[in-house]
Amino acid sequence: MRAEIIAVGTELLLGQIVNTNAQFLSQALAELGIDVYYQTVVGDNESRIRQAIETARGRAELLVFTGGLGPTLDDLTRDALAAYLGREQRIHEPTMRKIEERFGGRGATFVESNRRQALLIDGAEPLRNDAGLAVGNALSADGTHYLLLPGPPREMRPMFLSDGSAWLRGLMGPAASLHSVMLRFSGIGESALEDLLIDLIREQTDPTIAPYAKEGEVAIRVSTKAAGAEEAARRLEPALQAIRARAERYLYAEEDIPLEEAVIRQLAQKRLTLALAESCTGGMIATALTAVPGSADVFLGGVVSYCNAVKKRLLGVPPELLEGPGAPGAVSAETAAVMAEGARAAADADLALSVTGVAGPAGSEGKPVGLVYVGLAERGKPARTDKLELSGDREGIRIRATKRSLHLLWLSLTGRG
Amino acid sequence: MRAEIIAVGTELLLGQIVNTNAQFLSQALAELGIDVYYQTVVGDNESRIRQAIETARGRAELLVFTGGLGPTLDDLTRDALAAYLGREQRIHEPTMRKIEERFGGRGATFVESNRRQALLIDGAEPLRNDAGLAVGNALSADGTHYLLLPGPPREMRPMFLSDGSAWLRGLMGPAASLHSVMLRFSGIGESALEDLLIDLIREQTDPTIAPYAKEGEVAIRVSTKAAGAEEAARRLEPALQAIRARAERYLYAEEDIPLEEAVIRQLAQKRLTLALAESCTGGMIATALTAVPGSADVFLGGVVSYCNAVKKRLLGVPPELLEGPGAPGAVSAETAAVMAEGARAAADADLALSVTGVAGPAGSEGKPVGLVYVGLAERGKPARTDKLELSGDREGIRIRATKRSLHLLWLSLTGRG
Repeated sequence: MRAEIIAVGTELLLGQIVNTNAQFLSQALAELGIDVYYQTVVGDNESRIRQAIETARGRAELLVFTGGLGPTLDDLTRDALAAYLGREQRIHEPTMRKIEERFGGRGATFVESNRRQALLIDGAEPLRNDAGLAVGNALSADGTHYLLLPGPPREMRPMFLSDGSAWLRGLMGPAASLHSVMLRFSGIGESALEDLLIDLIREQTDPTIAPYAKEGEVAIRVSTKAAGAEEAARRLEPALQAIRARAERYLYAEEDIPLEEAVIRQLAQKRLTLALAESCTGGMIATALTAVPGSADVFLGGVVSYCNAVKKRLLGVPPELLEGPGAPGAVSAETAAVMAEGARAAADADLALSVTGVAGPAGSEGKPVGLVYVGLAERGKPARTDKLELSGDREGIRIRATKRSLHLLWLSLTGRG
Repeated sequence: MRAEIIAVGTELLLGQIVNTNAQFLSQALAELGIDVYYQTVVGDNESRIRQAIETARGRAELLVFTGGLGPTLDDLTRDALAAYLGREQRIHEPTMRKIEERFGGRGATFVESNRRQALLIDGAEPLRNDAGLAVGNALSADGTHYLLLPGPPREMRPMFLSDGSAWLRGLMGPAASLHSVMLRFSGIGESALEDLLIDLIREQTDPTIAPYAKEGEVAIRVSTKAAGAEEAARRLEPALQAIRARAERYLYAEEDIPLEEAVIRQLAQKRLTLALAESCTGGMIATALTAVPGSADVFLGGVVSYCNAVKKRLLGVPPELLEGPGAPGAVSAETAAVMAEGARAAADADLALSVTGVAGPAGSEGKPVGLVYVGLAERGKPARTDKLELSGDREGIRIRATKRSLHLLWLSLTGRG
């Protein structure tokens, strides 16, 4: 089945927001085995929406709309499609009751102006909206299928994942559904990972193996069409095993989670606590780890030592390492080791990770942009260090230093490092 | 002039990347006074690209393409347009020399395979690519204007901003060009700011006043069409003054910079140094500040105190504040004050900012999700504190706590707080 995604909203045409809905739906439709041939964005204008429907019908069997289901007069998607199909609209009673409950206390005007959110085109099935009021519409007419979803991603995504995809699976029958596993890698670039797996990626047609770039990480989706989960697992397993065998050192999860979450899980599983000492990453590693709910159980805290005085006072780095002729300086393996040991001791943690380097735009201490040292201290052992030479702009180097240092910690936690 | 933006790339239709180019170009075209009526995404397929051109010509006078100018056989945008127009392509010699310089040492095959990036459609003007190899194409034929830009944003953006927009200004003549000022606000929500300025936004037609939501902040663009910068300034000034008078407390910059950059500039201007003590923001304030190049001159460092032991050891928070019956606890004004004073003393900074709160998903110490205390310590003075009640999910609360605490610091630095 060929699909076209039609996003309706003048705010998209003005560049006020970015069309993340198109990306989400493209991925989600691909997972269902539906090919997206076009994405279109059109403004809040009934005649242009009708033209977009006409154009899309000539090149796709499934039209997925986002936006234009809200209460205001600018919300025109459903009206435009009803007019195009020559169909009436009727109230969906359960949605109307939700609206009355929400706005009943505020008077009849509020209920009336929100009434539009309860409308269904004749013949359409309602799609439940757990995060908002506007009901979704799903209908088929004259060989074309129409799915009308709300614009706000927090409403659109759950509606698509529950009622929307169920309706599409119903259209397609059981055999067509796609099953996939997302593999997440760190410590290796996208092209290096592709080189490592190039014959698998090229020759493999079922399951398919497709790389995705994520910020500072790489992901690979392994997918097959199967009637059920068991058949899917049997088809996917040989490809998964081949990838595991070649890239074990970089494959940190067989599900779609970021590296920091894999690190937090490892720490929790091994009942270990962690502290940090960050210079060039400036708090980015701490920010990543504390974004994971439950991180407080294993992450104790850290020091952002953005000047030498803080390295000395809070981490106990001796002045002779930092200053004077012949001193290794702030960006050195020696300083990274002492920073990690200092952070571990200060927080009384089982482990500590340190990062010191040059993020740019200018070099520092006569050292080049992109030179980064990572230290890893363990209770009762001397710290180990690693040297990284990273490329990119300031933000890119900070992100890569964050991911690479977390990857080194993950290797150590899983006994691979 | 009506425009359509056509992004070419199968990776967009698979949802592997999000179409940020469309947002960038929509904003940039609006600034030039060009209305975008449609955005389209089409795959790397010559016949579908030609169909997209045909459709777009029926509804726009300017077609702006991104993607498909690279060296591979999947890069088909220029070929498709040349075939559609029935025109030949020729080599752009300066680009070819760049390619020979880059790849000459690697052999004739490399030069040959990259040769496609130097092609211009007959009659097209070249658009310089400072960040890559593929030359841009700009041409007019049969009443339609075509602008062909590369897909990678780091190549596309500078090409559009220099040669691309110059070519468009040439098409439109001097009178049509749009001048605008971006005003950035913090410490106030989008709807509250709109309420404050609602009559200006509604009644003002020249200059226009349009709100934009940024992550955790709000921006307003004030725009007018004028023949030159001087005339533009004269037209814009009354609207700017009216906004300044109403929203001075929130208006932190009259250019498009984030709040953290405004804070770093204030610190540098006043030759003051800053330290941080972060609990619930987990390093996010430090990450934001250190993203600004030159921040090392004024930001000394900080402590991420994610457990009470670190609050005690590194910040000197007395145990009786944190534990025991009747203690105010980690999330309290008292603890925020001592954290700020402790961070200031530890780093020997002029100022220190502290944040402690409940980011969720669960409450803590019997306190609700979203409760956050901010402390601000100054050398020689007792710390001041503020209480925030924030809404949103864990990440939203962390972002809002970061922005609100930086806004409080900015108010203090500018004498408004």
